[in-house]
Amino acid sequence: MVGTTVGSKLVQLGHEVMMGSRTKDNAKATEWVKDKGPHATHGTFADAASHAVIIFNCTSGGASMEALKMAGAENLKGKILIDLANPLDFSKGMPPSLIPSLSNTTSLGEEIQKAFPETKVVKAMNTMNCGLMVNAAGVPGDHDVFVCGNDADAKEKVKAMLEADFGWKSFVDLGDISGARGTEMLLPLWLRLYGVNKSPNFNFKIVK
Amino acid sequence: MVGTTVGSKLVQLGHEVMMGSRTKDNAKATEWVKDKGPHATHGTFADAASHAVIIFNCTSGGASMEALKMAGAENLKGKILIDLANPLDFSKGMPPSLIPSLSNTTSLGEEIQKAFPETKVVKAMNTMNCGLMVNAAGVPGDHDVFVCGNDADAKEKVKAMLEADFGWKSFVDLGDISGARGTEMLLPLWLRLYGVNKSPNFNFKIVK
Repeated sequence: MVGTTVGSKLVQLGHEVMMGSRTKDNAKATEWVKDKGPHATHGTFADAASHAVIIFNCTSGGASMEALKMAGAENLKGKILIDLANPLDFSKGMPPSLIPSLSNTTSLGEEIQKAFPETKVVKAMNTMNCGLMVNAAGVPGDHDVFVCGNDADAKEKVKAMLEADFGWKSFVDLGDISGARGTEMLLPLWLRLYGVNKSPNFNFKIVK
Repeated sequence: MVGTTVGSKLVQLGHEVMMGSRTKDNAKATEWVKDKGPHATHGTFADAASHAVIIFNCTSGGASMEALKMAGAENLKGKILIDLANPLDFSKGMPPSLIPSLSNTTSLGEEIQKAFPETKVVKAMNTMNCGLMVNAAGVPGDHDVFVCGNDADAKEKVKAMLEADFGWKSFVDLGDISGARGTEMLLPLWLRLYGVNKSPNFNFKIVK
């Protein structure tokens, strides 16, 4: 859902998007490209990674490492990877908790950066619903998108893209990729608020 | 620090406060009462719990269960316990992580409620600096205090007290005590923001 939402918005804005999947003939990806015109294509994770200038990781957090390995370190090398995923653990029932090996003393963002040291991992937008990711005005007023990553230039490029394409204006830069620990651990509160508000249409604002 | 900040403010407002410690002659508690007048006293955890109508748990999260056992289930029975603590784990270096047995699939708030089923545990104000806890206006503008607990009446009493004594107006009620899971897991982000902002004087606002 995150992948098709982000992909559809980017195609609508005129960007070329290749949707990567485990297999070339993935049914959902095939369906997704149907009415999108020539800028929307699909292929394997490796096809998408080698094709792309910027990669969005929209896979389920528990499957991200495997998907990125299938994408291939060579195809990801030197590129910006915007990591939207969260290491949610559905194995212990609902609500999901976080996968212990990818949280608390580390994070999915950090582990991806460690596994792909030549890729510029930028963690961003993982603390909100995907509808809001691509349309900051979907929640009225002033609210924040958390951004972190080791490469300052990559972070600036991501911020510029999020502003130009998705309307984001208020960025909270948490420094290097270890800032992902805090934003991924925000998910249990986000899920609780989703239940309380009976809507995913809300966001966090740091007031100071 | 949390205990003396909250205690001092309550004494200043005319409430009677007994500071509980492991031992009756605790040096910091003895020092704390010195210039506070007749409304400030100190004693053991059990003295404080038996004396109190409302109990604030201001102990370090990793020591809370032991402190509350020393306070005694009989002394805590039927009373409101406002749990301000967080299960921070300093044993793995800085920044602290969360104690695995008190986080992710449970929380300190939940474990306290389980251990003391006849006490009305209300988790509140654990997502901010203690200076802000007792003075909501310390951060300008509109921002939130998260509250959760199993007893609806106890939560309303706590909200009324936080409003009357500390100036809180904007409450986000997360339902039963399992909401503590989300607010305690907010600590890693809080700690990161403290580092980024170089000040503990900020707070969260849920925008919707």
